[in-house]
Amino acid sequence: MIRFYNAQILTMNPAEQDGGLSIFLGEVHVENDRICKVIKGAFAPGEKETFEREIDCEDNLLLPGFKNAHTHSAMTFLRSNADDLPLQEWLNNQVFPYEAKLTGDDIYTLTKLAILEYLSGGTTAVMEMYLNPDRTADAFIDAGMRVVQTSAINNFNDSVEKLEDWYLRLNGKNPLSSFRLGFHAEYTTSVEMIREIAALAAKYEAPVYTHIAETKTEVDECIARYGKTPVALLCDEGIFRYGGAGYHLVHTTEDDRKRMKEHGVSVVTNPASNLKLASGIAPVADYLKDGIAVAIGTDGPASNNCLDMFREMFLVTALGKYRENDASAIPADAVLKMALSDGADIIGLPEANCLAEGKFADLFLLDIRQPNMQPVNNLLKNIVYSGSKSNVILTMVGGKILYERNNDIDRAFHIDCKPSDLYEEAEKIRRRILG
Amino acid sequence: MIRFYNAQILTMNPAEQDGGLSIFLGEVHVENDRICKVIKGAFAPGEKETFEREIDCEDNLLLPGFKNAHTHSAMTFLRSNADDLPLQEWLNNQVFPYEAKLTGDDIYTLTKLAILEYLSGGTTAVMEMYLNPDRTADAFIDAGMRVVQTSAINNFNDSVEKLEDWYLRLNGKNPLSSFRLGFHAEYTTSVEMIREIAALAAKYEAPVYTHIAETKTEVDECIARYGKTPVALLCDEGIFRYGGAGYHLVHTTEDDRKRMKEHGVSVVTNPASNLKLASGIAPVADYLKDGIAVAIGTDGPASNNCLDMFREMFLVTALGKYRENDASAIPADAVLKMALSDGADIIGLPEANCLAEGKFADLFLLDIRQPNMQPVNNLLKNIVYSGSKSNVILTMVGGKILYERNNDIDRAFHIDCKPSDLYEEAEKIRRRILG
Repeated sequence: MIRFYNAQILTMNPAEQDGGLSIFLGEVHVENDRICKVIKGAFAPGEKETFEREIDCEDNLLLPGFKNAHTHSAMTFLRSNADDLPLQEWLNNQVFPYEAKLTGDDIYTLTKLAILEYLSGGTTAVMEMYLNPDRTADAFIDAGMRVVQTSAINNFNDSVEKLEDWYLRLNGKNPLSSFRLGFHAEYTTSVEMIREIAALAAKYEAPVYTHIAETKTEVDECIARYGKTPVALLCDEGIFRYGGAGYHLVHTTEDDRKRMKEHGVSVVTNPASNLKLASGIAPVADYLKDGIAVAIGTDGPASNNCLDMFREMFLVTALGKYRENDASAIPADAVLKMALSDGADIIGLPEANCLAEGKFADLFLLDIRQPNMQPVNNLLKNIVYSGSKSNVILTMVGGKILYERNNDIDRAFHIDCKPSDLYEEAEKIRRRILG
Repeated sequence: MIRFYNAQILTMNPAEQDGGLSIFLGEVHVENDRICKVIKGAFAPGEKETFEREIDCEDNLLLPGFKNAHTHSAMTFLRSNADDLPLQEWLNNQVFPYEAKLTGDDIYTLTKLAILEYLSGGTTAVMEMYLNPDRTADAFIDAGMRVVQTSAINNFNDSVEKLEDWYLRLNGKNPLSSFRLGFHAEYTTSVEMIREIAALAAKYEAPVYTHIAETKTEVDECIARYGKTPVALLCDEGIFRYGGAGYHLVHTTEDDRKRMKEHGVSVVTNPASNLKLASGIAPVADYLKDGIAVAIGTDGPASNNCLDMFREMFLVTALGKYRENDASAIPADAVLKMALSDGADIIGLPEANCLAEGKFADLFLLDIRQPNMQPVNNLLKNIVYSGSKSNVILTMVGGKILYERNNDIDRAFHIDCKPSDLYEEAEKIRRRILG
């Protein structure tokens, strides 16, 4: 058992009356990969148990880990290689040709590099979409981090048979790893293939995940092809018969949102990537108003270029305020729900959506003694408006402490490999592929 | 003398052919408050000198410190107190009444709290605009950080006589502290007072700094009052006879920009604050196209709510790309110029605008061994697109190392007071004023 004490605790527990948004002083106890106790106040002395480790949180804040709900981890090798280009040109000239050269081992190493960044920023689970789900799962499992994968199949890469094979094999392989049905996007996938995927969703009564309406061009071209928006097409073809989520969803109509609500389609918003590729600003306030659940993702490191949920959280609220011309739009607590709890539900990890007995011990400790968090008028707002990954003291996934802040990078991570070795390997891959 | 060796060096020296944007391996030597040598390659053994300290940079990046060109430091006490409100309501109900209760000592303490945040984020100089410039200067001088102040005088606070008094007294008080003419904004200052300030500018042949065109309402009301935009009014009244800069400048016309160029008016853009208060997105790409120099500021911690130049840099480029609908707009090197070198020139610190012999030793060391900076396809882009204050290893101002990354906050800062004491004092002030 591991004991966190003298902690301020933000549970985000949706079962509590206030949604677990009231911070209290207390303890969290962890046994194996689960939280076994959340205690208000101090642990009663009589109940003394044997702890493998007792961590004095020194009044810092313990909270559920971030769920980065959309990313392409292994794209670390393209970070800062091809910025300042619009989406289609970027994909066709600077992404697809290089990705074609990646081996499974490359993907394993490059994913592990991303995992370092997730852990040091308080992220405990991601929803991954990339090539080679088998080697990607290996990377997360070996490092000890939680991953939900989906696939990026389309007419140019892989097949519906492969999708079904991954779906059957990669669930239950390890408690850290699961797999959801998914495909790349309408604009890379024929309607025939979309129908086959919808048939799989019906067969397994499973939600589906895909990129939707990231750019205006994508929406316009879909309308030209099918006479309807991507959201309407996918709903009509039965893709979301059992729900699911769309990544980006920057350009949607009122009718799209009505259909999304009806079909149980959630949103994963990726504000940094959408700005940087000049794709637009998603109507997040409209989604919330319409009762559509929203999660937050960084998108891949080639388009963002970092994997920092603090930056994304600030962007979600700040861009929402700008877009609505209303400084009260998307308040801090709504953003925390997206990043910490709703995000978990949306990607299919309800067991990681809060700090409560029986939930996965996926959490991090946030330093409120850094100057950006002082003084404390409102700690929830501090997290969203002035928080930074420099505030992350410790990150735990599945009951294991995988990151503890340390200036020596090789001592900061308690995973199965050394960061400095990963850097060397990643650099070799980068040179081989990019020259 | 202090020696930095084994450093990658980004000089940002505008006198070099490429604007000092080519990173090279070398050394920087510091004597008293100045850089005495910038060396490509290793220091020749024969030239061995006696160094007070030799710092092995281990291949990390040495670069000029950030110039945060617009802030209200002491507003730390209002951080996260009154978010989610539009500018005018926020100012009138949540800022002005509380500010009226601040003593000079409060401002001193609250400014020092902000200084901790600047230093830990690689910022070596700020342009400050707040109440009580005397006590503000004391805070910066005592901490050892560089400040350029201007005043926020207007019809409700202070006077032109006070402005002149500060201008004469607060320049030359200490090499770390200087003062420029300035006033709060057109919307709080009568045209008569504006004319008196313009007369001071003429008398001292001095540039003037003020908030301009932050919100559309401000511009509309100025047009209703005077039949012209704030930029046109201030130019016509002679405020910028010797140049200066406007803070925010979110809402400007083509004609405004023509006048700004003619009058030598630079821009200090504050993207986070402008989003968060739903004020808008400044036309930064237009300013650059028109040959108007741009600096970057965080604005105060009550509207941002953090003092993090990395976040601002990302916003400048990402919002520029979004606004122009062009993913190639405002590339990374342009952003670095604003944040590191042009920003210095704009606020009147040309001696701190690059790493070169004779310049102030105002610099920081950036950790490229954190996962967000790996692998290195392009280090300049990494700084802007994926950099974070968690990458700041060490910050030096005027030849003194004021910050060295350390998990123990009281050991991280080499200034004249303990952070934990400052936190306690700031909390007392917060309670007294906000209840």
